[in-house]
Amino acid sequence: MKPRILVTNDDGIYSEGLRKLADALRSVGDVVIVAPDREQSAASHALTLNRPLRLLELAPDEWIVDGTPTDCVNLAVLSVLKTRRPDVVVSGINFGPNLGDDVTYSGTISAAFEGALLSIPSIAFSALVGPGFSFDRCAEFAARATAYILAGDRNPQVVLNVNFPVGEFAGVRITRLGKRVYSEGVIERLDPRGKKYYWIGGEPPLWHPGEGTDFAAVESGFVSITPLHLDLTHHESIPKLKILEETLDHAPKTR
Amino acid sequence: MKPRILVTNDDGIYSEGLRKLADALRSVGDVVIVAPDREQSAASHALTLNRPLRLLELAPDEWIVDGTPTDCVNLAVLSVLKTRRPDVVVSGINFGPNLGDDVTYSGTISAAFEGALLSIPSIAFSALVGPGFSFDRCAEFAARATAYILAGDRNPQVVLNVNFPVGEFAGVRITRLGKRVYSEGVIERLDPRGKKYYWIGGEPPLWHPGEGTDFAAVESGFVSITPLHLDLTHHESIPKLKILEETLDHAPKTR
Repeated sequence: MKPRILVTNDDGIYSEGLRKLADALRSVGDVVIVAPDREQSAASHALTLNRPLRLLELAPDEWIVDGTPTDCVNLAVLSVLKTRRPDVVVSGINFGPNLGDDVTYSGTISAAFEGALLSIPSIAFSALVGPGFSFDRCAEFAARATAYILAGDRNPQVVLNVNFPVGEFAGVRITRLGKRVYSEGVIERLDPRGKKYYWIGGEPPLWHPGEGTDFAAVESGFVSITPLHLDLTHHESIPKLKILEETLDHAPKTR
Repeated sequence: MKPRILVTNDDGIYSEGLRKLADALRSVGDVVIVAPDREQSAASHALTLNRPLRLLELAPDEWIVDGTPTDCVNLAVLSVLKTRRPDVVVSGINFGPNLGDDVTYSGTISAAFEGALLSIPSIAFSALVGPGFSFDRCAEFAARATAYILAGDRNPQVVLNVNFPVGEFAGVRITRLGKRVYSEGVIERLDPRGKKYYWIGGEPPLWHPGEGTDFAAVESGFVSITPLHLDLTHHESIPKLKILEETLDHAPKTR
């Protein structure tokens, strides 16, 4: 039986990156697309809990959801594909990179994390865009990387975050997340009625230089593959904080 | 000079948890509230990038934003409070717990993470709710914990995630995140016109039993404090994956 591949993204079902990815993956397994019906960039790991979701089959094995990438993976695994779970969750190819601290905002990567939470090996693909960029080149690589995951004995708790450089690939680098330099990031403007409004962001991000980082790899023309996990516990701090069990531990007065 | 405390949440400005928290913190420092204008639960670390945001001062040092908790922290630090950054970001008190794997979905915790990304010590408070529950009891504890952070030499990259048990506090436990048992989580229904719709979730979460976890602490009546960080790199996997630098590293054919 061919492996079953769930494809999703956060740019929405009509994005070229998803189409090229799905086409390339058909050489690797049976592809089912469950993707947002519109762009959901920076949706992060949001789950839609306060309203119901709609799921619509546009074409055979091609579904849209009026929600986030995380919603898509949930509905795909727990409803559309519930009789046979996918063997891998593949998210992307995102139009634009997902590097360093920015991965925490990324809908593309959150979809892969949701796969991991459901114990399915998962991989996210994102591409820097500029002169010489080609979704075809990225998609061909993505198919090979996905075949590797399907062949191996992978830890489903570890998500692979792949970022493509703009031009021809100089090679592959296994990397860690870079640290972003935070600069002023809010732009204030006046609307036609003279009232203020605000845009978040604006300038392209700057990165702390660091050997072995995802940012350094793609900047040098390499494909960056960063293993990610979802254990947010900062274990080193636990012994240091033990003192709080004493100092904060006296019966609080109810006022 | 009294410390400056930024208070936010994901339940929205009108939530009792935020009010009680802000009131209790006035004994610790100068409180500025910048919170979403409506409920944003499960907004995760979403940033609003595709539309501008509005910021409205409802009362002195009390602002609302038509966006997510992460948007609120950004606008607060980079605009409202830019002449003097807050000394601490305090998020909550959330109506309901934020434990284990679920922290990745939490807007309450994302607000604290955004503080950490901006290099400001940050703490998130969430409360289990049930018979005997009291926001006052939680808020009194929150003020003491915030005073501790302000007094100490804290690593701003480590966020404290505090969860309150329902009743009187048996004490304090420094914990790690628990692992959730994932079960079927999508409910299918028919609308009045006979078309299907879906709700995510439904059943209360189950947890893998584990000593030292946040879930075990609150279940035993203790206040749980979990140190969290945002380095999602799974460092142990890097050497294991090095083989990929060879196996995936040959010039891909552009089709």
